[in-house]
Amino acid sequence: MDAAYLEARCRLVDAALDRFLPKAKTRPATIHEAMRYSLFAGGKRLRPVLCLASTEACGGSVEAALPPAAAVECIHTYSLIHDDLPCMDDDDLRRGRPTCHVKYGEGIAVLAGDALLTLAFEILAQTAPSRRHGVAGYVSELAVASGSRHLIGGQVLDLEGEGSDILLSPAQLRYIHESKTAALLTTSIRLGAMTANATPAKLAALSTYGRSLGLAFQIIDDILDVTSTPEKLGKSVGKDEATAKSTYPALYGLEKSRKEAAKLTKQAHDALKPFAKKAERLHEIADYLLDRDY
Amino acid sequence: MDAAYLEARCRLVDAALDRFLPKAKTRPATIHEAMRYSLFAGGKRLRPVLCLASTEACGGSVEAALPPAAAVECIHTYSLIHDDLPCMDDDDLRRGRPTCHVKYGEGIAVLAGDALLTLAFEILAQTAPSRRHGVAGYVSELAVASGSRHLIGGQVLDLEGEGSDILLSPAQLRYIHESKTAALLTTSIRLGAMTANATPAKLAALSTYGRSLGLAFQIIDDILDVTSTPEKLGKSVGKDEATAKSTYPALYGLEKSRKEAAKLTKQAHDALKPFAKKAERLHEIADYLLDRDY
Repeated sequence: MDAAYLEARCRLVDAALDRFLPKAKTRPATIHEAMRYSLFAGGKRLRPVLCLASTEACGGSVEAALPPAAAVECIHTYSLIHDDLPCMDDDDLRRGRPTCHVKYGEGIAVLAGDALLTLAFEILAQTAPSRRHGVAGYVSELAVASGSRHLIGGQVLDLEGEGSDILLSPAQLRYIHESKTAALLTTSIRLGAMTANATPAKLAALSTYGRSLGLAFQIIDDILDVTSTPEKLGKSVGKDEATAKSTYPALYGLEKSRKEAAKLTKQAHDALKPFAKKAERLHEIADYLLDRDY
Repeated sequence: MDAAYLEARCRLVDAALDRFLPKAKTRPATIHEAMRYSLFAGGKRLRPVLCLASTEACGGSVEAALPPAAAVECIHTYSLIHDDLPCMDDDDLRRGRPTCHVKYGEGIAVLAGDALLTLAFEILAQTAPSRRHGVAGYVSELAVASGSRHLIGGQVLDLEGEGSDILLSPAQLRYIHESKTAALLTTSIRLGAMTANATPAKLAALSTYGRSLGLAFQIIDDILDVTSTPEKLGKSVGKDEATAKSTYPALYGLEKSRKEAAKLTKQAHDALKPFAKKAERLHEIADYLLDRDY
């Protein structure tokens, strides 16, 4: 993967987020500081980068896809803030810094998450419609992927599984991964394509790419929790094992998990055939995610 | 106020909410049960009723305004669930029943709130556009009113004021009331009008009505916290005084607060002049809210 490309895209996304977010001093300042603290914490911007690369694969304008790119990052950040709360995963460290509730208190962290979730839809409503897709379609796409049957639903199952001694079945684990990770990744990709007026066939191909990529991404995440260090990851490691959490490595072992991630990455590549050369960046991102060590 | 009218409207709204919400057994069941537990808890449905009455005042169809009516109730309910959390107002009782986190635990309560907030936008995206107003306008209207500068911003100020011995200034208190209560009430009214293709002049008049009504409503709420009983209100009373919270009665005394509420209600009536007879229900609702004892 071309590091300069990734860096340029991150800068573009960060500038858009800075424009869309209320200034840190906007009244009441505490909430806007907290929102910015968690949003500008050195995240990889994977979801917005995928959104923009998908727009390009469909021949669209990167500029037009900045609102959905910013919106999906707001959703991702809100979900991290709420997942880190003491009543959920109870994490003190995120991206190498104190989590939002450690820094601002639990009440403000709940509200900062709520505000980022709400802002995501305010930003998304500013996206220009394409010929085939309108704002109603964009909003519905994001709300379903972020809602109680997908992103939030996955967190519910995660929460209910915690502290339980019983390992989940492979089907249950896959369902959690699909809900918690693959759904929002897929929607990021689909939203980018929708602003570029993608046909139903292209959207379907990109959905397959997103689902495979999302599952591979989550398996790698689970593997890194076993094999990496807090310094590299910027968050605590070994936590899954300590809490007896069901993960791919716990269910299948490291070697088989790595193979599964590679197989899913191959499926992601295959799904991009209809796009030929235009999907170059999407191919690169898939390889980059498989090979990452943080 | 015609009790049969209110009751019929509540039934209509409840039926719409029941259709829009995932069934209680939808996987993962816990979250859908928790969402329904808080949403169907005998709320007054004031925001949806205002939304529908506003549609009528603009000559629109009540049927077409059901999605925004349901959406604002989802927002209202989510904000109650999160406000009741131990890290916020820490309330155990709401509408005469245990609050969501008492019943389902804090983690699920946070997620049920998140899910209702997200669902509000999923529902709103299903509203048919009118000639002057589209889904982008609806979503933007709701997101701004519910966001960090209004609904959530008011809760931030409330949270920051709690435990502080210093009473807020009248301007600060008015700002909190405008943010926490008047903004979402006004948006409920505006959304109903927008689906009925309201002109900018009519929207402006309804905004004045909503702001005045919203402030009066919050003053009455503060008065009832002093003068009513938990049995009548279905929630704890005397809490504002116990926590030295800044309220209208604390700042102005009961008598002056009652006069202010009556003055604001008069302003609400005056704003409805352009609608003549069509605004009959909106007039009735304003009087009903002023005179309520629960």
